[in-house]
Amino acid sequence: MKAEIIAVGTEILLGQIVNTNATYLSQELANLGVDVYYHSVVGDNAQRLDEVLTEAEKRSEIIFLCGGLGPTEDDLTKQVTAKHLGEELVMDELALTEIIQHIERLGRKVTENNKRQALTIQNGKILANHNGLAIGTYYQGPNHHYILLPGPPSEMKVMFQTEVIPILQQNLPKQEQLFSRVLRFFGIGESQLVTELADLIDHQTNPTIAPYAKMNEVTLRLTAKIDRNEQAQKMLDDLEARVQQRVGAYFYGYGDDNSLVDETVKLLKAHKKTVTSAESLTAGMFQSTLGNVSGVSEVFAGGFVTYSKEAKVKLLNLSEEELRKHGVVSEYCAKQMAEQARSILDTDYAVSFTGVAGPNMLEDQEAGTVWIGVAARGEEPSASCFKFSRNRQAVRNAAIMNGLSLLRKKVQADTKR
Amino acid sequence: MKAEIIAVGTEILLGQIVNTNATYLSQELANLGVDVYYHSVVGDNAQRLDEVLTEAEKRSEIIFLCGGLGPTEDDLTKQVTAKHLGEELVMDELALTEIIQHIERLGRKVTENNKRQALTIQNGKILANHNGLAIGTYYQGPNHHYILLPGPPSEMKVMFQTEVIPILQQNLPKQEQLFSRVLRFFGIGESQLVTELADLIDHQTNPTIAPYAKMNEVTLRLTAKIDRNEQAQKMLDDLEARVQQRVGAYFYGYGDDNSLVDETVKLLKAHKKTVTSAESLTAGMFQSTLGNVSGVSEVFAGGFVTYSKEAKVKLLNLSEEELRKHGVVSEYCAKQMAEQARSILDTDYAVSFTGVAGPNMLEDQEAGTVWIGVAARGEEPSASCFKFSRNRQAVRNAAIMNGLSLLRKKVQADTKR
Repeated sequence: MKAEIIAVGTEILLGQIVNTNATYLSQELANLGVDVYYHSVVGDNAQRLDEVLTEAEKRSEIIFLCGGLGPTEDDLTKQVTAKHLGEELVMDELALTEIIQHIERLGRKVTENNKRQALTIQNGKILANHNGLAIGTYYQGPNHHYILLPGPPSEMKVMFQTEVIPILQQNLPKQEQLFSRVLRFFGIGESQLVTELADLIDHQTNPTIAPYAKMNEVTLRLTAKIDRNEQAQKMLDDLEARVQQRVGAYFYGYGDDNSLVDETVKLLKAHKKTVTSAESLTAGMFQSTLGNVSGVSEVFAGGFVTYSKEAKVKLLNLSEEELRKHGVVSEYCAKQMAEQARSILDTDYAVSFTGVAGPNMLEDQEAGTVWIGVAARGEEPSASCFKFSRNRQAVRNAAIMNGLSLLRKKVQADTKR
Repeated sequence: MKAEIIAVGTEILLGQIVNTNATYLSQELANLGVDVYYHSVVGDNAQRLDEVLTEAEKRSEIIFLCGGLGPTEDDLTKQVTAKHLGEELVMDELALTEIIQHIERLGRKVTENNKRQALTIQNGKILANHNGLAIGTYYQGPNHHYILLPGPPSEMKVMFQTEVIPILQQNLPKQEQLFSRVLRFFGIGESQLVTELADLIDHQTNPTIAPYAKMNEVTLRLTAKIDRNEQAQKMLDDLEARVQQRVGAYFYGYGDDNSLVDETVKLLKAHKKTVTSAESLTAGMFQSTLGNVSGVSEVFAGGFVTYSKEAKVKLLNLSEEELRKHGVVSEYCAKQMAEQARSILDTDYAVSFTGVAGPNMLEDQEAGTVWIGVAARGEEPSASCFKFSRNRQAVRNAAIMNGLSLLRKKVQADTKR
């Protein structure tokens, strides 16, 4: 089954609200195995809405219309759709009674406009609104299903869940359920990942592989379309094994709601290891990122922001003379920052950041040059140099992600022993 | 001029990402006086994209295509559009050189896929990408303007601002010029602001007033529609004066690309005042926010992240006994943290944060309780208590903004003397 989502509302076309209804419906329909091939947005204009409906009928079987069921004159979705279908609009008495009771309870006068919300399309089926006043309508034409939903997301979502899903399930062929698994990668670009997996991606039918580049990471969504969960998991396991064999070195975790910092904090907690940081160009961003994770206090007590050379000397007791000799954008400085932070706060690990955020050069080094140091209890500290490019924010973000990755790999290596 | 925005990407149709690009472009085009009558979303499918293009040409003059310029096989916007227009795709040598340099600098291999990002449509004009690799294209057909933009919002927005706006301004009829002024407010909610300005907003025709709520702040966009800049400025001056009279106490600056931290750092720089911070629940976020501002090193040298009680004692020399008596979520603790940080680093000002980020309570205080301390050289420190609501991230964000506002007001008061 092919579906299309039409959002009706001039406010979307003016950029005053974001069309999150289309996103929600798309997710839900994907989970039900319904293919969504198009979204459209059209304003509160009868002629344009009618044309968009005509176009949708040429290419889709299920047509969702979202918005324009409200009480005002410019809410015309039901009016236009009824006319388009050659049906009359009729007043639903039950919905009308509820609207009148609701408005009288608020001590307001019932206007003619309020009553418009109880209108429905003749020969359609009413979709109850458990979170508002305007009722929705389901209409089955000879070749198409029409589903009219209210615009406010809180009303639309509940109506979809309680009223629409049962209708769709009656009409959908049984075998088409989707099961997804998300794999997360750090340290490999989207193009390289896609190149490594080119033949798997090219020959995908079921399960499918969809790469998606996020800031400083890439996710792969594996999706199996099948009627049984056990079989889906087996299909996903097989495909994942082939993916991991090639790019497993960059894999760090599963799931849409996961992140490198979550996995890093989870690992530290599991092994009861503590961490601190000394930050120059990142100026507290690494520690603040740790602080995003609820319960991080088990493994993180605090640390240092040493933006200037003086602060490195004063707060971390680095030698001013050595810093002058090596420079602050140096392996020496990164190692010393990490080790001094670790030793002052007596933690198991410490990560340090020193470099050139830009836009200007520093110590004759280009913007984007960053040294990241890692100290571990009872060991010599180490440091790695990175050359990030582009703007100040991108340099700092990339530094944080690489710092997390270095820390995570170090803890993993140490605790596997 | 009528415009239409086509977003290309299967991930939008699967509900994996929200089509915020359409929202952004709609806002910007509204400001330029361009009417947007339709949004469409189509997947990474050549035939369907071609059909959507044909449909758009029937009803719009400016056609925006967003997304699908990336390196992978499913990025086909340029390919399909070129074929649709009967033009060849050509490699832009300058863009190609930049891509190769960028990837080699990252120490990665250049793949054939990477090179696709340097392709453009013959007889089109290249739109430079200042935030990424894939170049955009502007193509002027006999009846339509085609504008191809990258999908990642950070790349799309900069390309729109720097490359597309000048092209649109050349092509728009002269009399329909819009002149805008953005006023930024902190410390007042959108509904309160709208209530204070209700009559101005209700009677707006030209200039118009558009309020817009952002995270922890509200902006007002005043827009005059007129052919001459001088007259527009006069109209905007008059309206602004009426606005400032009512809500000027919450005003902090002008412009779309401005922020409270920018204004605060600017003020510190202007008066050659230095600042530091000691952060508990915010864990470095305040200092990291300062670090976002290029050139902040003139006024900020470093500071402290003291997440645990032990770190407050160790790094700031607070008295363990007093902290036990007052608690760490206290006026006492906030004042001491600020004053100790200031005194250790010998700065003019210091801001401290201590409180309950949540989700759990701390010291019998509810999540969202935050004390912010401000210390100034030669003065007793002060502290204010806030009750923020909602989730952990929201609490921390609100704390940072209020810390910046307290600092800015203190510096303003001190330097006005």
